[in-house]
Amino acid sequence: MRCTVVGAGAWGTALADLLARNGHEVRLWAYEPDVVESINSKHENLRFLRGHPLSSSVEALGDVNRAVEGAELVTLSTPSHVLRRIIKSASGSLPRSAPLVVATKGIEKETLCLMTEVAEQEISGATVVAISGPSFAVEVVSCQPTAVVVASTSSEAAGVAQRAFSSPYFRSYTHSDVIGVELGGALKNVMAVATGIAQGLGLGFNAQAALVTRGLAEMTRLGAALGAEPGTFAGLAGLGDLVLTCTGSLSRNRTVGIELGKGRKLEDVLKDRETVAEGVVTAQSARELAAREGVEMPIVDTVNRVLFEGQSARSAIAALMTRELRAEVDK
Amino acid sequence: MRCTVVGAGAWGTALADLLARNGHEVRLWAYEPDVVESINSKHENLRFLRGHPLSSSVEALGDVNRAVEGAELVTLSTPSHVLRRIIKSASGSLPRSAPLVVATKGIEKETLCLMTEVAEQEISGATVVAISGPSFAVEVVSCQPTAVVVASTSSEAAGVAQRAFSSPYFRSYTHSDVIGVELGGALKNVMAVATGIAQGLGLGFNAQAALVTRGLAEMTRLGAALGAEPGTFAGLAGLGDLVLTCTGSLSRNRTVGIELGKGRKLEDVLKDRETVAEGVVTAQSARELAAREGVEMPIVDTVNRVLFEGQSARSAIAALMTRELRAEVDK
Repeated sequence: MRCTVVGAGAWGTALADLLARNGHEVRLWAYEPDVVESINSKHENLRFLRGHPLSSSVEALGDVNRAVEGAELVTLSTPSHVLRRIIKSASGSLPRSAPLVVATKGIEKETLCLMTEVAEQEISGATVVAISGPSFAVEVVSCQPTAVVVASTSSEAAGVAQRAFSSPYFRSYTHSDVIGVELGGALKNVMAVATGIAQGLGLGFNAQAALVTRGLAEMTRLGAALGAEPGTFAGLAGLGDLVLTCTGSLSRNRTVGIELGKGRKLEDVLKDRETVAEGVVTAQSARELAAREGVEMPIVDTVNRVLFEGQSARSAIAALMTRELRAEVDK
Repeated sequence: MRCTVVGAGAWGTALADLLARNGHEVRLWAYEPDVVESINSKHENLRFLRGHPLSSSVEALGDVNRAVEGAELVTLSTPSHVLRRIIKSASGSLPRSAPLVVATKGIEKETLCLMTEVAEQEISGATVVAISGPSFAVEVVSCQPTAVVVASTSSEAAGVAQRAFSSPYFRSYTHSDVIGVELGGALKNVMAVATGIAQGLGLGFNAQAALVTRGLAEMTRLGAALGAEPGTFAGLAGLGDLVLTCTGSLSRNRTVGIELGKGRKLEDVLKDRETVAEGVVTAQSARELAAREGVEMPIVDTVNRVLFEGQSARSAIAALMTRELRAEVDK
């Protein structure tokens, strides 16, 4: 199949490599000319996935229209804040019959739309599929066993994505709850920041496990309010991805949280970084969504106060940890 | 309140210390004379919680009948395979009005009873409370923030336990689903062995996060069959404890799994250990419960095959990871 991946960060690059190893013809659009150059000449993404040789059949392009032309399956993996703009610029060349697999995780700041909603708005009639689950890119490109979900209201499109991405070491389960799968992937980044803050403050595993648990509960509450199935959050795109991001050592969002927990300022933490920590933006969007839907999200609120309102990490986490005694499940 | 803790392993010792810091009068029964001696003379459990000074008001005793006499709250924290025998031997002195807080996690091998069921059978009319949640003993004794649940069909008894154990750094949430809370605590040890095996084999975070997710799904299935509320498994005693045990660096059960994953034999792994890895015994009991209830538990089966049937860790995990593609949620 002719597959195009739009966005050559670590995750897009790993997905392009996976598709190529599965025998597909793969074009990968990269924003940065040096990334196009290094993938085509060295078969390595020296900027975002250094040290991992890529399938030599992945062809990188700097022109997004040329990249999507004639594609039978298009995967979107840009940072969330530029997804709309990039789809717009590619829309003239994008074959309407190609399912759009959305690998970008986030909530658009201005509109509070999920990434599949952004895609549907820009490409009318598009069939969208969300792909999510516990999947560090460096492990996927290293052929470490990984399991994800591919969710679509079209079971046919979900099946196409499942067959395209599946390999002996990459298992894709189909799912029908697009909203739940996407929200899990987006919100877990905020929880990763929260867990990182706790870790940076020197709190132990007990506290971090409690945070993860209460975090999943508030993710599920927001999901239910937005029409997702609560059970989705107990699956790979909810719990699975949350566990990975909050405990695996490689997560960008958790690293940002750790620095904040140690007392560094957000602007100082972010200025050292080349890659996007999606959880920082998603924290704001999630808080607005929660307010709109009337859902209580104390961990999301806490992260926002530390990120944007100058509350010290220590006092914010202390406040979160000492809410009054009560039953675990409110009756 | 006069509180007795029966069993001076790491967890019982940490709970005794917590109760003492909360101002209660605490007696702690220890099986080993050297533990009685070290707690009373050095205020430290040199065998099971070395390096952590205990409240000097914790009194250790070697006679379980004297330990429980006159107690107003009794906490049981022995290894699971000796709980019945120890309750039997103490039952003559145990005040019938004292709630029994069960901190032991496991499933009795011969009867497939949960630990609260064992207590109820041996002390007729007893009011039992299960305490569980993500709580490494060394963190509790170090006053690291921790959150657990205390579950009882008697909301009064749950409230007594909640007030006795709660402190600014130890939060107890009340719960009514005793079976769910206990099963979560018991089964997570099997999942920790499974995750350890995967880690020992060199699998990455993606695979371990997928295992944790699928593990919680099968724990929840068994719980539902046994009358637990599925939602309990999404809480501190399910997900929370599972995350802790499968990802925190301190878990005994995971350590056993890692050694097995590296190719060592079970008998060699266990002979080096002073403490009990409950997951090894619970794996068998869980498999029998699942068979009795007609519940599919592929991860529990896999752990049993590695532990007791000589299957290599590599082929067992490979088989688990390559089950046929399908939807995440069976419809």
